[in-house]
Amino acid sequence: MTTFFERLAARSNAVDSLVCVGLDPDFRRHAVQEVAPFLRDIIAATSEYAACYKPNLAFFEQWGIPGLRALELVLDAIPAGIPVIGDGKRGDIGSTAEAYARALFEVWNFDAVTVNPYLGRDATEPYLTYRERGVFVLCRNSNPGAEDFQSLTLATGEQVFERVAATAAGWGPNVGLVVGATAPAELRRVTELVPATPLLVPGVGTQGGSAADVVAAAGYRPGRVIVNASRSILYAGEGSGADGAAAEAARALRDALRAARDAG
Amino acid sequence: MTTFFERLAARSNAVDSLVCVGLDPDFRRHAVQEVAPFLRDIIAATSEYAACYKPNLAFFEQWGIPGLRALELVLDAIPAGIPVIGDGKRGDIGSTAEAYARALFEVWNFDAVTVNPYLGRDATEPYLTYRERGVFVLCRNSNPGAEDFQSLTLATGEQVFERVAATAAGWGPNVGLVVGATAPAELRRVTELVPATPLLVPGVGTQGGSAADVVAAAGYRPGRVIVNASRSILYAGEGSGADGAAAEAARALRDALRAARDAG
Repeated sequence: MTTFFERLAARSNAVDSLVCVGLDPDFRRHAVQEVAPFLRDIIAATSEYAACYKPNLAFFEQWGIPGLRALELVLDAIPAGIPVIGDGKRGDIGSTAEAYARALFEVWNFDAVTVNPYLGRDATEPYLTYRERGVFVLCRNSNPGAEDFQSLTLATGEQVFERVAATAAGWGPNVGLVVGATAPAELRRVTELVPATPLLVPGVGTQGGSAADVVAAAGYRPGRVIVNASRSILYAGEGSGADGAAAEAARALRDALRAARDAG
Repeated sequence: MTTFFERLAARSNAVDSLVCVGLDPDFRRHAVQEVAPFLRDIIAATSEYAACYKPNLAFFEQWGIPGLRALELVLDAIPAGIPVIGDGKRGDIGSTAEAYARALFEVWNFDAVTVNPYLGRDATEPYLTYRERGVFVLCRNSNPGAEDFQSLTLATGEQVFERVAATAAGWGPNVGLVVGATAPAELRRVTELVPATPLLVPGVGTQGGSAADVVAAAGYRPGRVIVNASRSILYAGEGSGADGAAAEAARALRDALRAARDAG
């Protein structure tokens, strides 16, 4: 049995890339029947730069069942050997989490998922029992509102996201954490706290995080750090050749991460 | 425009019931093609006791797209005038939350939803803009792991769930909170902190919470307190007449809540 993080490391090393391409189709730009052809072209254009792909379920669910049919076609188009993270950020009590884990790992066959820590360990346990899959626990998100609760200071002096990092990292060997590139100080702090725990880092590109900041904070570590960009790759070609521009944007992110490593 | 909480109060008063019937079909008990017929029978048997229904999306997603087809049939079987809460506990950054809100309110047409607060206000805002719908924010869940993070003490002396209650209650007039019946002291505390905010209270029945404790802690307040039971109603008839037993279980919960009011 190879684990998700072993497979991710193998792919990331093979293409020397930390890039995760987020597959998040915009409702305003596409009719549902255009989604699968659009994303198949994106995948074909970006796969040589991709350590992994990450469809966010919301962007398929927004079209209802036809959107999920499109997701089926999109997953079929991802080349074997490139891991796929199902970004659903689910979080529910244990018996319900079993059902979500069944949906995500057995129906959709994702290699890894994202989950929300607010309901605690027993709400995460059902995902962790799939030992060969990966489970990225939300820690410090990339949006402004992440500060509302994640940055609160506990009586111990820790911030909530620090406690989540330290606690969740102990839940199992297949746990990673989600920490946004828009919060480089927090990314550095999580890297110090739990240096062996893999990190999924969203928020570069449209959201404003920089590749250089990510590598400075978390290092260039294939299989241990992946950096997601979605809109800035998918819609790089607005008004011009879409696939060529997406390929260029993915390559540019890969190269910016490499350059940050080489400068470090 | 009537709001969700006005519609909930009207229904709850009309049947003098605080009961929310959770529609959570068990993967081990049903093949997917049995789900809609089973739940249609449950709805027919329990509707006179139901202030609202609450399908949890996980229990349909676990069968993939065929499970969501069953959900369509189930929703069609719920009588007009009975509000329906889509329990998905979604939580994602603002642009993604817009997509989830579109899925839940426009595709599925739920009257209300449950959402996770971990990503903060901007992650909840897209749901709140649907002013005639309800948004129940997770506050203190009913599972043992809820203590892992929700019960942490902040530097201010508050516990995390208290801060979530006080903060989220201010996000809009269509906000409610989820507080589990398994934590009656916390339920009482939230009721004191934000007495005008509606509460969705899961965890009676199989999970061990009692109707009397809920009414003692939160009061008997139609449109302001609803008490969910799922498995203890749906599977009350194991080995005997399923519909009759489900009706009996729903009626018993309704009556136990009334009795607690009358004894109070």
